[in-house]
Amino acid sequence: MDIVADELVGRRTVRPGISIIAITGQGKEMISKIPEKNTAGVSISKFLDYAGIRGDGIEIEIHKKIKPGSGLGSSAASACAGVTLANALFGHPLSTQELLPLAILGEQIASHAFHADNVAPCLLGGIVLVRDIRSLDFQRLNIPKGLFITLVIPEISLLTAESRGILQHSVGLRQMVRQSANLGAFVLALERSDFGLMNKALQDHIIEPQRAHLIPGFYTIRDAAYAAGVIGFGISGSGPSMFAFSQNSLTAENAGQAMQRALSVYKVESQYLVTRINPEGTVLC
Amino acid sequence: MDIVADELVGRRTVRPGISIIAITGQGKEMISKIPEKNTAGVSISKFLDYAGIRGDGIEIEIHKKIKPGSGLGSSAASACAGVTLANALFGHPLSTQELLPLAILGEQIASHAFHADNVAPCLLGGIVLVRDIRSLDFQRLNIPKGLFITLVIPEISLLTAESRGILQHSVGLRQMVRQSANLGAFVLALERSDFGLMNKALQDHIIEPQRAHLIPGFYTIRDAAYAAGVIGFGISGSGPSMFAFSQNSLTAENAGQAMQRALSVYKVESQYLVTRINPEGTVLC
Repeated sequence: MDIVADELVGRRTVRPGISIIAITGQGKEMISKIPEKNTAGVSISKFLDYAGIRGDGIEIEIHKKIKPGSGLGSSAASACAGVTLANALFGHPLSTQELLPLAILGEQIASHAFHADNVAPCLLGGIVLVRDIRSLDFQRLNIPKGLFITLVIPEISLLTAESRGILQHSVGLRQMVRQSANLGAFVLALERSDFGLMNKALQDHIIEPQRAHLIPGFYTIRDAAYAAGVIGFGISGSGPSMFAFSQNSLTAENAGQAMQRALSVYKVESQYLVTRINPEGTVLC
Repeated sequence: MDIVADELVGRRTVRPGISIIAITGQGKEMISKIPEKNTAGVSISKFLDYAGIRGDGIEIEIHKKIKPGSGLGSSAASACAGVTLANALFGHPLSTQELLPLAILGEQIASHAFHADNVAPCLLGGIVLVRDIRSLDFQRLNIPKGLFITLVIPEISLLTAESRGILQHSVGLRQMVRQSANLGAFVLALERSDFGLMNKALQDHIIEPQRAHLIPGFYTIRDAAYAAGVIGFGISGSGPSMFAFSQNSLTAENAGQAMQRALSVYKVESQYLVTRINPEGTVLC
């Protein structure tokens, strides 16, 4: 089983401000070393500000394990790691609740949108429903026992901003009613660990059809996943990664291979990995 | 405490077909005695058809306790009573699951829409999430203990078709995300009996603002309900009735009086009643 996480290493400096002394790993060339343009840099800067730290600074190395532009919340991962690291280096002046908005401000540099969809579960762990971003009201949902996740990461790159740009700005009222009911049913399926209901509820009638064409062979890949026995399938974030939910690790592995094969027909290389919901969130090592 | 329910009385006849021999009660002048134009008549007719009953017929009296056009599911109540009565008179040939679509077809005569929003909870009881109308997939949700409902019924009439007609056909994507999250949170609040979350989740940013002007003094009435200590407030169905949720019967009564007073300032007479979620659905007496 695989764990998907960015790693940050850092230390306090007597010089004020933030230095990013190294970036290694996946897509490192896509990440700025200028703190003001880096999600970890911005979130740490916000931390120093809100924690009232003036004299000292921080220097960090960023080891990217989550590829930017993959739809797996890469920028949120670095932002969450940034505030968690900085908070630890200065003796935990802020609570996790207080770190959350700072990490959101960090991610905003990359996604150009103020949202907690990635940051909240990344920092807090588990499955999180963001009810209201304005008041930062979010709810941790039950993690059904026996839920395995397959992630397939095609070797193509989509920028979140671009993938978001193609979405229509409005939704038909009937479609909204239908899709909202699916979200309500998905929450219920999680709370009750009802995999049959999860299967039915994981149908996206609004966003998926608009983004499907960005992923070569999307519907073939989806069919391959369901043929392998998964409970649900979808685009991860704004893509191009895809996820599938399974009730056991064998199905999860088989689905990964099947999706990879389906992609290879379209001459797209990919990685896949099998993982589980991380209940802990961002951790110190 | 009040119970809100239409009553049907009926008997088998040797003459085939359906006769509506009397309609009494609230808004009786708005209800057709022609079986093909009456929600109970149509649902019974569908019942006779699907149960394969040819020789015999049914005659019924309809005693309306739920005023048509009030937003309380009046037409669904008669449709559900129709199929339940007919099924009993012929020895229960169909299951409740089988009666459901027949009652939906009955209600369709009045609402001009194929939906189970009223029929499903009315027939089955409890709180029901209609996930998918095409496959009639619905989920019964937890009924939180200690939940009281105040209904205020202004003496003005709105036709469902009219109240539906004013709705915009599309919704902004951002609004949809926000409102879907509230629905997800409302399902969660029910499952967990979390009244604090229910309070926050019961905000309608899409439909309520479009219909508020149909009810004189709507926002004053809402403020009066919240000032009385209710957990949530909204338009019932397509209005003009309004509901409020409370955690005890005293708040529920006080809220009813407060809402009635607020309406009276706008020269609108009203009734209010305090009730609870009926867990049983349509019953034989």
